[in-house]
This record gives sequence, structure tokens and C-alpha cells, in this order.
Amino acid sequence: MPTDPIRLQQYPCFRELTEEHREAIAQLASEECYYSGHTLSEEGKPGTHLYLLAAGEVEVLYSIGEEEPTRVDRAHTGDIIGCSTLVEPYTYTSTTRSLTEIEVLVIDAEALRKLMNEDCPLGISIQKEIISMLIDQVIDLRLGA
Amino acid sequence: MPTDPIRLQQYPCFRELTEEHREAIAQLASEECYYSGHTLSEEGKPGTHLYLLAAGEVEVLYSIGEEEPTRVDRAHTGDIIGCSTLVEPYTYTSTTRSLTEIEVLVIDAEALRKLMNEDCPLGISIQKEIISMLIDQVIDLRLGA
Repeated sequence: MPTDPIRLQQYPCFRELTEEHREAIAQLASEECYYSGHTLSEEGKPGTHLYLLAAGEVEVLYSIGEEEPTRVDRAHTGDIIGCSTLVEPYTYTSTTRSLTEIEVLVIDAEALRKLMNEDCPLGISIQKEIISMLIDQVIDLRLGA
Repeated sequence: MPTDPIRLQQYPCFRELTEEHREAIAQLASEECYYSGHTLSEEGKPGTHLYLLAAGEVEVLYSIGEEEPTRVDRAHTGDIIGCSTLVEPYTYTSTTRSLTEIEVLVIDAEALRKLMNEDCPLGISIQKEIISMLIDQVIDLRLGA
């Protein structure tokens, strides 16, 4: 079910968008709640959804060698999960699983890519927000925050 | 002095661009060599240039509290330095300084932003490459690589 565009304003990455663009994205998004232990993405699998974590905590796991996926990071409120769904080959680069009850905005990645292709200024705006969030993530990881 | 567009093909992030786009970027770029100890970017200062490291090693430093900038990472051949010059507020988020002799492709960030604004498909292509490189950087940092 589409989300009310006004709800998107709570996510910093959408605040700079025009109202028209927020309305278009709201059509592709739904707000969901999941219990602890819910898998959002599986490493190497097609990237079907982009997630914005509105509340709760998520673990990030990677397969290292042939061992079981290992936790290498945690995502917190405000983080975006599944940026790799927006760039080729459109697959998840990690497995993510809720550690607590979580609230997430779930966006249909394929539909978002189509929208970004059709509306170039919207594509540019969203990509800029993704770049800013990734730069912040790199800084946090470098500082061990 | 502009770079030969063919030279841009050695940088993975430009390989997917059209020849026309590579020609446009080559006009804004120059290949430079610097000795060890050369400062490429200063944390908090206006982001004037984007760098692609073709050879050598660069240290990445952050100011933590009121202390002198501290080394928190290293950049290696193939890395991009100064992604933050492409997103507001267009300032460097870290100080970077060569640890060895380096070869870099130096791109005028303001001119690149202007080009990306004027040519939306080019903007989309470049930003996709930046997102891919940042995702790889996040993975490397998470894995402690």
C-alpha cells in the first residue's frame, strides 16, 4: 500500500526533494514493522527492495570464505539498507537481519530505478542523497563510530 | 592542460561512459605527479578537485576533537578522493596527503558539477560509479581490508 507523501519528510534523505518527487516515491513505498530476526536482504541475491530504517537495529553480515555469514556491522535508525540495489548488477552486497523490532520504509527498488531513469532530475537528487549517506557511513567506519 | 580521452579508459569508473562523455570530462582533467607529503585535500575546506589515484598511496586524516588530524585510513591505486566535492556543501570531509610519489587524475570539481547539471544522463552515469565505489569502500572498511 502506498505511503502518505508527508510521512517521507521524516526521512532526511527525502527532505530536499520536491513535493511532486516525494509523491512519486510514496507510490512505491510502504511502511512496515518486523520482529527481531527478520531477514531484509540476502548477500548475492537480486536487490528487490531498498530500506530506510525508521526505528530499531539491524545486523549486517558478510560471507567470508566458506564460513557462515559473520556480523561485521550494525545499522541504526536513519540508516539506509540496500544502496547496491540502485547500481549494477542490482544485487545485495550483504545479508541484513533485524536485531530488534524494527520499523522500515520499504521501497520497490526496480520501480524506483525505472522512475529515476524516466525522471533524470529525480534520479540525480536521490543519487546525491545516497552519496551523502555513503560518505557519512565511510567516515563513521573510519572513525570506528 | 586537458587529458587525452583515451587515458580516461584506464580508470574503471569512466569505462562505462560514452566516448562523448569521456571527451567532455577529459577537458576538465589533468594527469599530475606529486612527491610524498603533498596535500590533496584539507578537511572542511572548499572541495575544488576530485582525484583518481592512478599510482601510489595516500593517507586519510581526520580532526578528532581539538587534536591534530589523525590518520584513519589509506587510499590506494584505483581509489577516488574527494567524492564529497560532488554533493552539498561541496567541502572536503578529510585531509589527504601523499605517502609516496603519486600519479593522480585531477578533475576540476566545480566544472564537473556544472557539466553534470547540464548533461543529466552524464550526471547519472558518474554518480552511479561514485555510488559503486563508495559501496566497495564501505565493504572494505567493514571487513577491515
